[in-house]
Amino acid sequence: SLARRCHQRSTAMLDVPFLPFCAFLGTLGLLCVAMVGTWCQHWRGGFSLDGSSRTFNWHPVLMVTGLVVLYGAAALVYRIPNTWSGPKLPWKVLHGSLALGAFVLSVLGLAAVFCFHNSQGTPNMYSLHSWMGLGTVLLFSCQWAAGFGAFLLPWAPAWLRALYKPIHVFFGSTILMLSVASCVSGINEKLFFSLKNGTTAYKLLPAEAVFANTLGLFILIFGVLVVGALARPSWKRPDSDSPGSRQ
Amino acid sequence: SLARRCHQRSTAMLDVPFLPFCAFLGTLGLLCVAMVGTWCQHWRGGFSLDGSSRTFNWHPVLMVTGLVVLYGAAALVYRIPNTWSGPKLPWKVLHGSLALGAFVLSVLGLAAVFCFHNSQGTPNMYSLHSWMGLGTVLLFSCQWAAGFGAFLLPWAPAWLRALYKPIHVFFGSTILMLSVASCVSGINEKLFFSLKNGTTAYKLLPAEAVFANTLGLFILIFGVLVVGALARPSWKRPDSDSPGSRQ
Repeated sequence: SLARRCHQRSTAMLDVPFLPFCAFLGTLGLLCVAMVGTWCQHWRGGFSLDGSSRTFNWHPVLMVTGLVVLYGAAALVYRIPNTWSGPKLPWKVLHGSLALGAFVLSVLGLAAVFCFHNSQGTPNMYSLHSWMGLGTVLLFSCQWAAGFGAFLLPWAPAWLRALYKPIHVFFGSTILMLSVASCVSGINEKLFFSLKNGTTAYKLLPAEAVFANTLGLFILIFGVLVVGALARPSWKRPDSDSPGSRQ
Repeated sequence: SLARRCHQRSTAMLDVPFLPFCAFLGTLGLLCVAMVGTWCQHWRGGFSLDGSSRTFNWHPVLMVTGLVVLYGAAALVYRIPNTWSGPKLPWKVLHGSLALGAFVLSVLGLAAVFCFHNSQGTPNMYSLHSWMGLGTVLLFSCQWAAGFGAFLLPWAPAWLRALYKPIHVFFGSTILMLSVASCVSGINEKLFFSLKNGTTAYKLLPAEAVFANTLGLFILIFGVLVVGALARPSWKRPDSDSPGSRQ
């Protein structure tokens, strides 16, 4: 019909190729990592392991790098068309390794903030940011362990893989959304803490505030694009409705 | 094959029926509205229109009610199986009206915070929360206007509807994710502002902090469930791949 031809032509206009999209996303992710590093180095005094605010500075860098950028890369592995044919195991190992790297960085990021709080005598785990962030990392640990048990251990039965796969996919996007919400609330909170006095008050919007607010927006855009890419039907593996049958 | 039978039986176990899910989601949404109202009434001094912090209190209530709960209801209209057959116009009008209600509440919510800031001499639009929140409402205004123009005006051509529909769907979920991230960063920020002194400091985790942190987690769960429901293939209208052909 005319309507269907119109529809096909119209949706073809929206067909973004996956690889240029990934190049853009990779650039945006590296920009986020560079910006969070620059923020902590240039405005917040740099990095150390002495329990001071320079120890805290590892927290935003490790969280943005691990829980957002590297996590996003891990999540998108099965959207690469090369993964759709041939042996699956190498791609599974790549997906699991990237996710493990993201997890290790986020645990180190938690260690940085706990170490800072403990050496300053500040209580841990009181803010909504901390509840949401720790909840995100705990969910991520369950996701990794369950994914390892169901998809990488060779004796996991096909029915278990088939049952668990949509759950793993759902929590994959969910954890990224929670990570991004944790990051932006953390950047917001840190700016209120750090920019309290006189001429550099957050409300006067100094250069640091513009820079870190922009970083927050870039993290949001990165997260939205990864979740959108994961949900896009034409980028999913064509046989994704019968996951158990391919093992 | 055995694997396919296994898969079908396994995924059938995960088939949540839509209407009980909606009842749960509606309860959770009403709980969020009741909790944000209780927070502002019981701990933050209640509501007024005098430019004081009691004017500000309209801001969280209107944003959670409009930009999260009512918005979520609007987004889910086309997941009700009754909307899949028969005339579409009444459902379009319902979807557009709920979204318009959500938009009006969120504009009133913005008015509340601008009025509060202006009467206190506080600058507007400096925090990451404000950038993200205003960006979300601006995106929502574009989404509503473009949706009205493309889907409700009878002279919009089929090719335009077909072209714009996936964009509208993508931004539908995106705006909700941004709303939720804005809400949790706002609750976090408000608690740091309000709980500064002595025995009620946020870091001592008084009852108000536990209550509002829990509200933040409920808002996150509500948002994740709505975005998950929107993405769930079996809850989409079966002919959703040819939107233009049904007008």
